[in-house]
Amino acid sequence: MSGAGISPQEVESLCQTPHPSTKDFMFQQTMYRIKDPRKSIPFYTGVLGMTLLKQLHFPEMKFSLFFMGYENPAEIPKDEKARAAWAMTRKATLELTYNWGTESDDSCYHNGNSDPRGFGHIGVLVPDVDEACARFEQQGVKFIKRPQDGKMKGLAFIQDPDGYWIEIFKADVVS
Amino acid sequence: MSGAGISPQEVESLCQTPHPSTKDFMFQQTMYRIKDPRKSIPFYTGVLGMTLLKQLHFPEMKFSLFFMGYENPAEIPKDEKARAAWAMTRKATLELTYNWGTESDDSCYHNGNSDPRGFGHIGVLVPDVDEACARFEQQGVKFIKRPQDGKMKGLAFIQDPDGYWIEIFKADVVS
Repeated sequence: MSGAGISPQEVESLCQTPHPSTKDFMFQQTMYRIKDPRKSIPFYTGVLGMTLLKQLHFPEMKFSLFFMGYENPAEIPKDEKARAAWAMTRKATLELTYNWGTESDDSCYHNGNSDPRGFGHIGVLVPDVDEACARFEQQGVKFIKRPQDGKMKGLAFIQDPDGYWIEIFKADVVS
Repeated sequence: MSGAGISPQEVESLCQTPHPSTKDFMFQQTMYRIKDPRKSIPFYTGVLGMTLLKQLHFPEMKFSLFFMGYENPAEIPKDEKARAAWAMTRKATLELTYNWGTESDDSCYHNGNSDPRGFGHIGVLVPDVDEACARFEQQGVKFIKRPQDGKMKGLAFIQDPDGYWIEIFKADVVS
């Protein structure tokens, strides 16, 4: 890889003023596929502290969706239809797609960090990286990078059960 | 693909109560790689209506990061250090990684929706799918699925300049 990159001034000049009709747009979800909800659901709830916002099952097409996010479980509507509308209007949810049967086949999903590359990671902001990572260690979580490893101190990368990368960082990591 | 899937009851039983130390965790970012910021920055601002929250350049390692999100541009701190801390604490940001020189090589990034699969898409909630898509059409955006196509009416998939999929939907899509 080479090239001179791009100047901050040129980047600013590339930014267009948002059209008024986009005022209420929301970055609502990030979707990736999981092999086995029996591993992923305990990971995203028990390790990362997310809540299952809504589950949806499509028997005709043999897949299920699990919307995960950092929301107060007490706010989940009791009515399932209301719960779906609520979940789909929460900001920053993770949509886990489960194609039935993948848990017992030999395939595995591609995390995007080896060829062919593309998607890289999701990132979770935490109040205390060392404390969070100490707990992850106890839980047997796989690490790509521990906080003390490498040049960038104070941030970590862990892996979910499918091998997707999750960055664990605090707000001052780039300051 | 086969298998019986998983029952809603079993899914609920897999959910663990979030540990108290995860109370302030935030799903802050989704990162993927882009080939050319001269295409991606106009797309995410001018088409999707996001704002450039912060740009970071790493000349020694020849890459740049662009944090995009739906925030009020008037709230961006003037001081660059304060701006970085602010950007890294916004919920639901998109982190675009630009490795210098990729805009002029033959490679392209993998969107995860053909083998090897993994990551699928990001999703943007909009007040009016037809209105949003009519504007995207005028802007020459590539569609994977238009709102009126297929079985799932009222939702669309568009592609960013690298071919990543972006779902455009409204809240009642699953109700």
